Amino acid sequence: MASVRQVNIAIIGAGGVGKCFLSQLEQLAKRRPEPKLALVYISTSKKAIYNKDYASIGLDSAIASLASASEAPLAPSALADYLNGSSSKAIIVDNTSSQDVADAYPLFLSRGISVVTPNKKAFSGSYKLWQDIFQASAKSGARVFHESSVGAGLPVISTLKDLVETGDEVTKIEGVFSGTMSFLFNSFAPTSGSGGKWSAEVKKAKELGYTEPDPRDDLNGLDVARKLTILARLAGLEVESPTSFPVQSLIPKELESVASGDEFLEKLPAFDAQMEETKAGAEKEGKVVRFVGSIDVASKQVKVGLEKFDRSHPIAALKGSDNIISFYTKRYGSNPLIIQGAGAGGEVTAMGVTSDLLKVLSQLS
Amino acid sequence: MASVRQVNIAIIGAGGVGKCFLSQLEQLAKRRPEPKLALVYISTSKKAIYNKDYASIGLDSAIASLASASEAPLAPSALADYLNGSSSKAIIVDNTSSQDVADAYPLFLSRGISVVTPNKKAFSGSYKLWQDIFQASAKSGARVFHESSVGAGLPVISTLKDLVETGDEVTKIEGVFSGTMSFLFNSFAPTSGSGGKWSAEVKKAKELGYTEPDPRDDLNGLDVARKLTILARLAGLEVESPTSFPVQSLIPKELESVASGDEFLEKLPAFDAQMEETKAGAEKEGKVVRFVGSIDVASKQVKVGLEKFDRSHPIAALKGSDNIISFYTKRYGSNPLIIQGAGAGGEVTAMGVTSDLLKVLSQLS
Repeated sequence: MASVRQVNIAIIGAGGVGKCFLSQLEQLAKRRPEPKLALVYISTSKKAIYNKDYASIGLDSAIASLASASEAPLAPSALADYLNGSSSKAIIVDNTSSQDVADAYPLFLSRGISVVTPNKKAFSGSYKLWQDIFQASAKSGARVFHESSVGAGLPVISTLKDLVETGDEVTKIEGVFSGTMSFLFNSFAPTSGSGGKWSAEVKKAKELGYTEPDPRDDLNGLDVARKLTILARLAGLEVESPTSFPVQSLIPKELESVASGDEFLEKLPAFDAQMEETKAGAEKEGKVVRFVGSIDVASKQVKVGLEKFDRSHPIAALKGSDNIISFYTKRYGSNPLIIQGAGAGGEVTAMGVTSDLLKVLSQLS
Repeated sequence: MASVRQVNIAIIGAGGVGKCFLSQLEQLAKRRPEPKLALVYISTSKKAIYNKDYASIGLDSAIASLASASEAPLAPSALADYLNGSSSKAIIVDNTSSQDVADAYPLFLSRGISVVTPNKKAFSGSYKLWQDIFQASAKSGARVFHESSVGAGLPVISTLKDLVETGDEVTKIEGVFSGTMSFLFNSFAPTSGSGGKWSAEVKKAKELGYTEPDPRDDLNGLDVARKLTILARLAGLEVESPTSFPVQSLIPKELESVASGDEFLEKLPAFDAQMEETKAGAEKEGKVVRFVGSIDVASKQVKVGLEKFDRSHPIAALKGSDNIISFYTKRYGSNPLIIQGAGAGGEVTAMGVTSDLLKVLSQLS
């Protein structure tokens, strides 16, 4: 286990997660002087900073420097050339949610550059891209980790990998995978009390910043479907894409094509009766309704949508915007292994990225 | 990241966990041909098998071979000499709960031999031993992992390390850390219904194999105190030993010195009134009583004992013999990161050991 003196880091993306990651990286570099973590590239979609001699960009001033930068970002192959020009090992941290960046992972990995990222696109896109990524990694030895692509910093991916790699048989995975959906249903159909009107809860969630700018981007279920795709593939299922299994959209058909999120919110109250009926149906059985994803490994069934749960069920008892993920396996028997907590937010998402970075560092040599 | 062709494995201990681990190792070796995992030593407290030429002992026949073996186990320094005599990297898997083996970890690590183990003794003994172990590891680069020392295969240790190493501030850790205590209190003081008599529940737990041969070894709280010691140290507290903070024993004073576990069980019903009173006191507040451990990091307070919880609290709602561990941190805010599931049993304990072994393998070079 020889020691590595310097590792070059290239960060793509400097939004909410990117800024939190940068701050965690700064703290990390202070606590762990060896190996030296040199930030040699950082870019937004429009600008980039890097130095021909691989001098480290100040971690505390990178965001300010980006604002006044004039260089355009490097194309993937040019970025790989640049990083390969140094004798130090390199790690790319992709803090975007860009499909274009994700498509370049096989290139980066095949050139010996490790990748850590919260970006779901690479692992929930086409199955071909998934295979290309892991084949490139296996061939070159470069690592790829994406803990924050499901449940942010919660140890979801690492736990599923451990279960599979130690030979346990995962039979079922079930949970609430969206902080937005969690918040909406915990308020709309609480385990005690009657909850608000559906359209009012959606409006409130939007005002609190818990939804995407257009709430339909949460309500269509695609974000959850992407996370389920990733977990199902790790559990051994060859899921073709996040649209290749049943996903229930909570957008009324009539509002799918209205022009804006604001118009959607304005017209949503007219459809409250539908959701109210679903809630009442569950209540009649003493249950509450939740928006969940599930993977039945044996029957290869993946689905996303509304389900009813007993009020005492851990999924029903969830609080705030927490996620919960239950792994049912042969070894764990009838009581699943459960992981629960905040599954969204800049700091906890960046934490998953930072711990992935630490994992790569521990495996570099 | 050069590839390693053979890794030598030495297993100490072939009891319940040891047998499960051996079977997981056998499956692992079949699935992953590279590096070759060669079992070059296996021992019980009385016997050992090993070959001067480091030929691999059959993983499927090791237990049978041990039964007819005639060699005595090697002393720690002789075992280190033996493993150092090969050019292959070596990993010792300690599946015992022996203090003597634990005391030898600094020696093994200082000689470049990695250690993976569910044995709590090394990490919950004297603070000096803890320091010696991690200093030896830091100096030689040999790895030491002990996921199963708390919560068996549940990702407790790795999650706490990730929180700390990525710079989160852990403020409090709280949970049910003993499968035996979990089972006892879930039956004695269920969230609905009235539960059985205390002495009857202890007897039932013993009959179901959920307690140590002498149930007092569970009821004295020391097992939980050891786990708390480990977590508190990982969270940065210099806890001197598992007896250096308040630990509530559930053994009536009068029964501490009775000769046997059987005599203890026979005399326990005379003390049911005490526990019944505790239960009734909690019920008056609409709560249930549970045996928990907690670490308040800021005030450096570690304690183990009975606490009251609302019936809807995740700790109250636990099922069967499950463990639950809640991490309260700055990043996670008011809703903790929670991990829950079986925290005891041969297969899940061995799973933690196997995943630690995989971690060492990924870091060898």
